[in-house]
Amino acid sequence: MATVFEMIISGDIPSTKLYEDDSVLVILDINPVEKGHSLVISKTVYEDFTQCPSAQLSHMMEIAQRVALKLKAELKCDGTNILINNGKASGQEIPHLHIHVIPRYDNDGQSFGFSKKSYEGDEIKEYGKKLAL
Amino acid sequence: MATVFEMIISGDIPSTKLYEDDSVLVILDINPVEKGHSLVISKTVYEDFTQCPSAQLSHMMEIAQRVALKLKAELKCDGTNILINNGKASGQEIPHLHIHVIPRYDNDGQSFGFSKKSYEGDEIKEYGKKLAL
Repeated sequence: MATVFEMIISGDIPSTKLYEDDSVLVILDINPVEKGHSLVISKTVYEDFTQCPSAQLSHMMEIAQRVALKLKAELKCDGTNILINNGKASGQEIPHLHIHVIPRYDNDGQSFGFSKKSYEGDEIKEYGKKLAL
Repeated sequence: MATVFEMIISGDIPSTKLYEDDSVLVILDINPVEKGHSLVISKTVYEDFTQCPSAQLSHMMEIAQRVALKLKAELKCDGTNILINNGKASGQEIPHLHIHVIPRYDNDGQSFGFSKKSYEGDEIKEYGKKLAL
């Protein structure tokens, strides 16, 4: 079944487009963290970012940079979050690669809700060995 | 004054390294959201991602893809968040470009703490015009 992004790309579902080229579509998120929250969507469907060829990911990130600069210029936001969620466990709602670009303001009352973990003793070294590339 | 990342890159502060090449260093975050939370750090200092040349950002994202695949393979995590914070308002603690790669698990109790905003009436169209690239 087509994802909502495929239906937006095909024009079957309306959207507010900020940019479009052969491989990328940028739209406003209709359920934004802040007004101006944008989504850089790959036209080719990759379920998540680990499956995306480097050239396409690179292109998407260049567009994300332009979006972030535009948000700063037009909305006078003080910062941006760039966010890619991979997999349902991470908060990814649509299994179709997209990059969130979220405007942020000083003292906007937003914050990450993540709790933190601690490494005990030499545990971090063990993780370092296990995860070395 | 050198940032903590510059001191880690120079070796003046110890770290748990997962990967290093001429332009990128990957370490474990010592204050992780989840164990395995990694940071892909640019060796050249860019204050935030909008200032980073595309080739370097592309390389950093390729490494982030490898980190995400490694976390999945070794920790059996169910997903990952890729996060770049730009500017103090966004939660960026160190003004030196770095990409967070955070392992996530089904029902891990973590969630973004962001509240959502709403567009009223035709407001989203006005934002669309203002923010078009």
